[in-house]
Order: sequence, then C-alpha cells, then structure tokens
Amino acid sequence: MAAIDIGGTKIAGALVDAAGLLTRHTVVDTPATGTADEVMAAVARVADAVLRSAEGERVTAVGIGSAGPVDISRGSVSPVNIAGWRDFPLVERVRALPVVGGRRVVLGGDGVALAAAEHWLGAARPYSNALCMTVSTGVGGGLILGGAVYHGPTGNAGHIGHLSVAVDGESCPCGGRGCVETMASGPAIARRALSEGWDPPGADRSAKAVAAAARAGDPVALAAFDHAARALAAGVAATAALVEIEAVVVGGGVAKTGDLLLEPLRRHLKEYASLPFAAGVVVVPAQRGTDAGLIGAAHLARGASGDSAA
Amino acid sequence: MAAIDIGGTKIAGALVDAAGLLTRHTVVDTPATGTADEVMAAVARVADAVLRSAEGERVTAVGIGSAGPVDISRGSVSPVNIAGWRDFPLVERVRALPVVGGRRVVLGGDGVALAAAEHWLGAARPYSNALCMTVSTGVGGGLILGGAVYHGPTGNAGHIGHLSVAVDGESCPCGGRGCVETMASGPAIARRALSEGWDPPGADRSAKAVAAAARAGDPVALAAFDHAARALAAGVAATAALVEIEAVVVGGGVAKTGDLLLEPLRRHLKEYASLPFAAGVVVVPAQRGTDAGLIGAAHLARGASGDSAA
Repeated sequence: MAAIDIGGTKIAGALVDAAGLLTRHTVVDTPATGTADEVMAAVARVADAVLRSAEGERVTAVGIGSAGPVDISRGSVSPVNIAGWRDFPLVERVRALPVVGGRRVVLGGDGVALAAAEHWLGAARPYSNALCMTVSTGVGGGLILGGAVYHGPTGNAGHIGHLSVAVDGESCPCGGRGCVETMASGPAIARRALSEGWDPPGADRSAKAVAAAARAGDPVALAAFDHAARALAAGVAATAALVEIEAVVVGGGVAKTGDLLLEPLRRHLKEYASLPFAAGVVVVPAQRGTDAGLIGAAHLARGASGDSAA
Repeated sequence: MAAIDIGGTKIAGALVDAAGLLTRHTVVDTPATGTADEVMAAVARVADAVLRSAEGERVTAVGIGSAGPVDISRGSVSPVNIAGWRDFPLVERVRALPVVGGRRVVLGGDGVALAAAEHWLGAARPYSNALCMTVSTGVGGGLILGGAVYHGPTGNAGHIGHLSVAVDGESCPCGGRGCVETMASGPAIARRALSEGWDPPGADRSAKAVAAAARAGDPVALAAFDHAARALAAGVAATAALVEIEAVVVGGGVAKTGDLLLEPLRRHLKEYASLPFAAGVVVVPAQRGTDAGLIGAAHLARGASGDSAA
C-alpha cells in the first residue's frame, strides 16, 4: 500500500509493506497558510516521490490519514490548521493525480489512522475494544470497536480531545467548553503550571520544561500533570461508559513523559471508571512513533480492500 | 417473540408480534429485597403467564431486557436495585424454566432495549446513529450505531448517566464523580431547586413539583431544569464527539415535562456540540412509553435470530 499522512505542519508519504515496513519515506512541510492548490501541490509531490518507481507500480491502493475534521462519506477534509482546505475534495483530487493513475484511494481521519496503526502493529494488538489517543499540542484519538477500526459515519469518531469534562470549564477554540484538550494538552499543562505559580528556571515555558520540573519534585509542576491526567481519566471513563473499552493506548509528545502522566491517569481512572464493566480499563503507552500515521493510513487502505498485498 | 422486562420495581412480560403489538401483558412487583430465588420465582410467574397458551406455543424465542449492569457475554445480571442478584445466571435460569422449554433466550441491558424499541418503532426510526436516553429516577441509555443496536462486549454500552461531565462534581453512588445522573435525574433536579432556595408550595418536593413551579415562572425552578439540561447537553455532545450521532431521543418521567427540559437541552447542545460533525445533532422526544422495555426486548430476540416470525 501507499500511505499519505497529512498534518498541519508536515505531509508525509511512504510505501508500507504487508509487515508494516516503510520504504520511499518522504516528508515535506505543509504550506498551511497557502491556497488550496498550493497544499494540494505538496500532496502531489509526496505522491510522486512515493509512487514513481518500479516498486510503486505494484501498489494497488493509496491510504490517506488527514488532520480533521474529515468527511469520509464525501471524501473531503477541512483540517483546522490548514485554512485553505474547507470541504476540500481530497479523494477526488488525489485520484486524479497522474501518478496515482486511478488506484483506489481510501481516506481516514488522523485519529482513526493512529488507532489503526496501534491495533495492527502496536499496543492495541491484544484488544478488541480500545481507545487510542495522542496527547500533544492537541488531544486526539480513535476507537477500535468489536475488533475493527470505528470510523463513524463521517470518519471523526474517537474525538476524545473535544469531550467536555467540565460543564463550567474554560472555552475551547472548537466552540465548546471544558474540553479535555483545554486541560490536558501540552500547552494546557504549561498554562496551568504558570497560572499556579510555577517559576521556570530558564526561558523554556513548555510542557517539556514542566515535566523536567516535575521530575525534580516541583509540587506545582506535578499538580499540573495531575490536573491534566484527571481530565484524561474523565474522558477515558466516559468512553468506557459509552462504548465499553478494555484498554486506552496513550501516545504523543506529552505521553513521552511516561509515568508522569500515566501514573496519575491510572489513579484517577480508578475513581471515574468505577462501574464494573468499566473498572478494568488498562492504560498502556503507545508503541508506534511518528510513523503511526503512515502505518495506519496503509492499514485503512488494506482494510477497505481486504487486500493483503502491497 | 416473548419479551420480559426486569426492573427494580416491576417485572413485566408480553408476547410481541411482528408489528410490535403486545398481548398477554403481565406485570408483577419485583421482590427487590428478596433472595435470588425469590426474584427468579417472580420472573418464572411472568414467563408462565405469557407462554402458557396456544398463542405462546408458537413463540420461537424469549427476549429479556434487564436493569444493569448486565453481562451478555456470560448471560448474567447484577442489577443495582436488586441486591439478591449478583452475577446471577439469568439466561441459564430462564432457559431451564419448563414453560420456556429450551427456546432461545436473548439478554440485553434495559438501556439497549430502550434504544432497540425507539429504533424499531419509535423516534429513532429515521436515524442510523443515535443515542436513546431515559431521564427519570436515574439516567440511562443505549446506542444505535451504523443502523443497528450497539450492545458493547458485555451489553452495557450507552451508559450516558454515568459519564462524568464535571471532574470536580459531586460523588455519585456508582463510585464516580460529576456523573450526568448526579445533575440531571429527577431527584437531582429537586435537590438542586431546594438547595438554591426553591420553596415548594405543598408537601411535594419532587421534580414534578419543580416542573409545575417552573411552568408558573419560578426562576429557581427554571434554573434547576436548565442546570440538568446543561449536564445532559455535555453528555450528548461527548457521545457525538466519540461515536458521531445524528439524533438523541429523550424519554422517561423527567422528559415528559417536554420543552421544560428539551428547550434548554437544545440550547446548551449548540454550545457543547460545536464541532461540524457534531453540530447537527437533533433532539427528539421518545415515542414509546412504558412498553419500550418489552418492545425492545422482543426486538433484540428478533435481531439475534433474524426471525421475522413471532
């Protein structure tokens, strides 16, 4: 399969074989403030680099994971951080690229692609029902239900970052209020630490610096991670109550702090997920890194076709 | 189909034909504080009354909707309000009743049965993805996903009442904190009105009396319904973000107040469900009344068999 991963800062592409190995890996910057056609030209360059080869010629389908919201029922995308693309007919435009030559094109949301990657070749492998989430500049996710990736009708299911866990909480850029992302993203952790009196030793006021302070025992920094973990726990518990999950897989930059986030998440989850069918949810770190988007996009294309070949 | 609906106060049974019409409708009180065998004897009396007839003899399956938690993977139930039943092997025990005579027995949670009823013959008919909830002494629900009832692995999916929408909210008897039920159930509405200074004109301090006061323009009573509607809106928005729904069907005693609950629910939903794929969620009143549990249980049995015959 060929895979393309479209984010607000990078557009990546690769060939992904049946074992999940990447070749012809290509990355370009996203012209995020450019016109629709300028962004599409960057996608075309990536598709060209990946498919224009003897190896590429044997590829039967192209999987795309895109920053959302997406609409897989119409093949279009409206990524929050790519202003030029609103209801952009991505599937149609990729299918029309000469190098794609009419191959099947399968679109999924980036959260769904992440879940597909962890379920195929990562930490969600043992589970038939799981939430896979990424805690980074934002908070996103995707669901595995009944042993398969769950897209939802338009491909946006698993949007854990925009669950409200605080009806009286702060406004979120999405228009909502008290969203998980307003409390648990990297910037939210840094904001919380600073507002509670954290005094950064240097110029770095990021979540990474808060993590360093927390590891050194700073109580305000520790409390900022605890606050984020509570919001995540409430969101994960909500997911367990709504669709029953066995596990939550946690990846992304903030999750790289390891137990600084995962220990309080496990602890708070005991409180929020107390119904018997929800109490057993396991918290595990993600196993895929930055290649998850490509691995997952390839898997979506494979799943949609039933193909096991490249 | 034969249907049995097991709740904390009543156990009901009926034959349900292919058009959803009920015959041989039977209701007994639940011996909720009795031993496991005493409760089972009440179920047996209902099964007897429903199946012991010429008409009953043509029935191919028995559907059961039970108060939860349930475990449909093991055929057992542990209803919160029936203390004698913990991991009670309900399917096995019903199957062993002489009058059941080895017919197929299908178990579902009561929230799932409610959703099945509204999807088959009620307000959820037009939708492939919906949350059906009941707002009453408690708050419960069930999901329709991809055009079908979604049980989840153990039959407890759609547990909207125990989503936390207030990480710092009050403790819930479920063990959690800030659950929708602690803010939106009938007793919660009455509690809120009283704590905010509502002065009931008579001895009735129930949500029904709060509703009467609200209709007469009492601002504290109106605010209590608004508070409940906000919690429901956050829960519905969370459901939309997680699995994408087109509609929420609202039934139960508190919902019978009509626009007193539904108008602020619609208004707050605009705030909490603001992502494009969630913003279109429609709020509709339930169409089935107290028969929903039986209609739904029968539909679960039908769905499990593919039978269209009785």
